[in-house]
Amino acid sequence: MFSVEGQSQSVLDLMESEKINLANDESLKLLISANPILIDVKPAIEVIPNMARNIILTSGALMEWEKYTGGQRSAVIGGVIHEGLASTAEEAEKVILSGSVEVRGCQEFGCVGSLAGVTTATMPVLVVEDRNSGNRGYCTLFEGKATDRLNYGIYNDNVRENLMFLEKEIGPLLGDIIHQSGGIELRPIIQRALRMGDELHSRNTAATLLFTRELFPHLLSLERKGADKKSVDIFLDYLLHGDYFFLRASMAAAKATIDAIKYVPNSTLVSSMAFSSGEFAIKVAGLGDKWFRGPLPIRESCHLLEGFMEEDIEIMGGESIVLETAGLGGFAQAAAFPLQDYQGGTPQKMIENNLKMYEIVHGEHEYYRIPYLKYRGVPTGIDVRKVVSSGITPTLDIGIAGRGGGQIGAGSFKAPIEPFQKAFEALLSIKK
Amino acid sequence: MFSVEGQSQSVLDLMESEKINLANDESLKLLISANPILIDVKPAIEVIPNMARNIILTSGALMEWEKYTGGQRSAVIGGVIHEGLASTAEEAEKVILSGSVEVRGCQEFGCVGSLAGVTTATMPVLVVEDRNSGNRGYCTLFEGKATDRLNYGIYNDNVRENLMFLEKEIGPLLGDIIHQSGGIELRPIIQRALRMGDELHSRNTAATLLFTRELFPHLLSLERKGADKKSVDIFLDYLLHGDYFFLRASMAAAKATIDAIKYVPNSTLVSSMAFSSGEFAIKVAGLGDKWFRGPLPIRESCHLLEGFMEEDIEIMGGESIVLETAGLGGFAQAAAFPLQDYQGGTPQKMIENNLKMYEIVHGEHEYYRIPYLKYRGVPTGIDVRKVVSSGITPTLDIGIAGRGGGQIGAGSFKAPIEPFQKAFEALLSIKK
Repeated sequence: MFSVEGQSQSVLDLMESEKINLANDESLKLLISANPILIDVKPAIEVIPNMARNIILTSGALMEWEKYTGGQRSAVIGGVIHEGLASTAEEAEKVILSGSVEVRGCQEFGCVGSLAGVTTATMPVLVVEDRNSGNRGYCTLFEGKATDRLNYGIYNDNVRENLMFLEKEIGPLLGDIIHQSGGIELRPIIQRALRMGDELHSRNTAATLLFTRELFPHLLSLERKGADKKSVDIFLDYLLHGDYFFLRASMAAAKATIDAIKYVPNSTLVSSMAFSSGEFAIKVAGLGDKWFRGPLPIRESCHLLEGFMEEDIEIMGGESIVLETAGLGGFAQAAAFPLQDYQGGTPQKMIENNLKMYEIVHGEHEYYRIPYLKYRGVPTGIDVRKVVSSGITPTLDIGIAGRGGGQIGAGSFKAPIEPFQKAFEALLSIKK
Repeated sequence: MFSVEGQSQSVLDLMESEKINLANDESLKLLISANPILIDVKPAIEVIPNMARNIILTSGALMEWEKYTGGQRSAVIGGVIHEGLASTAEEAEKVILSGSVEVRGCQEFGCVGSLAGVTTATMPVLVVEDRNSGNRGYCTLFEGKATDRLNYGIYNDNVRENLMFLEKEIGPLLGDIIHQSGGIELRPIIQRALRMGDELHSRNTAATLLFTRELFPHLLSLERKGADKKSVDIFLDYLLHGDYFFLRASMAAAKATIDAIKYVPNSTLVSSMAFSSGEFAIKVAGLGDKWFRGPLPIRESCHLLEGFMEEDIEIMGGESIVLETAGLGGFAQAAAFPLQDYQGGTPQKMIENNLKMYEIVHGEHEYYRIPYLKYRGVPTGIDVRKVVSSGITPTLDIGIAGRGGGQIGAGSFKAPIEPFQKAFEALLSIKK
């Protein structure tokens, strides 16, 4: 944190620049006016521009292969095997090192990854278009009831079977439903879910229900048109027994939203946040595609499933914090008091966290509002300058993976300050 | 309010009686362990014991016919005409006065009425059984999108048509769905809805969604067994476009619940609350079937639809406060901050209201909990003694009707103290 006194003239100029404030107004407007529509579900290779059979996407600012550790490394290797690009882990390492298989960052491709975030050519992805900017965001499907999951660092027969189930059963029918519906507007669902205890990151219970209600009539209509009854039952079972389906849709929506400010000149708002197994990193609107990197997020409170301890926690990456970048998740904790159970913390602490976020943003959302705060709009548009001057970093709601693989809990984290400081320095040197 | 000092010995005995405390423990246990299951939907005459063609049920402690005024009077007359017991309002008045048509209180029949609460022989009612006590509660169906409604004091062609629609279309299919399901457990729905912004009285948005999710697979299954497609569509449209369906189910559940303590000897817990167009009244467990009457509830905050003013408000009766009697509604306002929009008030005021209710109850609910209050159980079991000694009366969440008919808003009300004082006097005289 720094006070205005004692700062160099160039810092003062940066903090008070009218040009920057206007650019941030523009960015904020783009974030708020986003109108995300779920328009399709298709295998990644069919819809993600520049995707290829030999590309494996994963969470976070891209690192050299040797830097990926633990579950994220295992998940990437699992992805290579799943696509038939290698048949053993050793072979997978080889094809990656030789360059015949490319490991790339999800976000370069308009994609966002949950936890390890491994996204491969055949995996079905949700396609969300922001009707305002025209940007598209992509995210893989919720894994359903499966306990073993690729993105928690596991690849085995169960995982393969479940991925095939998503590819063969869920993806195609969900695609048909979405086509039948003409596209599903996500903004009204997110708006309502905020009134129903969700912050759309660690809690998507209401959003999933609202989404399910939207789908019913179309599913019925497809069955009447001859859709296979067994497939309909399988799909219903998938949809009715998970509270997290919507997370992937809200992630893709947030990605389509934040990409609208990717290149707004002079804007100091954060245009992306992500982490891998090794680093947390941010991008800034006025600084284009450069990642500013730092250490991993810091745990503030967490709740672990019975039988697990702190030393079991392993960071495997995660880009679901795209939601915080767009003003949801940790920026809307006061909308989601039920999270106490899931990620620890008290309602009072959640309110405090949430109020702090107003100190580091450029404005408040027009559509996304928090009942407890008298329907105040969620804090939106993280300003690097305010993070650095206040020393307050973004609150992040994060699912926690265990060393042995699988989800072992969830928690409220703080972003590290370093990437914001580096971005601030970069802004200063541009000013010069 | 009174302090312990200066009270007569008989008052002190009543306040501190071990026998009463034990009886209240028993009542509280019955309230908490209720396990309400929606088991059927049938015309009132087929399921409500002692119901007859010439009986019209209405809200509140029964009064002489001349005392019913405004919308409640019009609604009863509408009910008489709807059942073909008269063809004009004048004729209806005549058959009521002659006694050939009987006006009776809903609650005598295990029934609870919304607003005017008019329930007649042919109207389909939800049947909810408390599996713990074996009691059954009944309530008519939500009127759907219709703006003109009998229970808001209107009877015209639209209302008749809508009542016929509920009788011919919705009731039978919903009945089939419930049979197909084997009965729908309401406690888990209520439990979850409290985590999703509902207090189950003025807000049932989440509960309705959760209920809808329960029904859908059974509806699909019925269609596959040959249910008429058009009827299925009509039913889906009814269910998907209203957020209030569940209110009638939660009312019937609460009625089945509170009836369990109707005759617990020595218990000073409130076993019923209701109001008509003229009076608010309560019953007390240890005092059996006697109503203790007083003036109408007092408005604390309210929100009226655009174009309406305070002088448009008309009290037409209401038994949905059966929910408050069971620990929901005004006793769970801190679970439902979104109600600000619907019934006025601030989140802070809601919390304050909610906390006050803990001062007048015997205990806290085991299953129904409030996220904002760190999952504290809802205040349950209103103790007449505590109401009188604290001067705090129950908070009631109420829909507001207009003089011209129809709903014009909603509000947070306070019960009048007089019925509690009368009941307290009755308890004192029994003690002597």
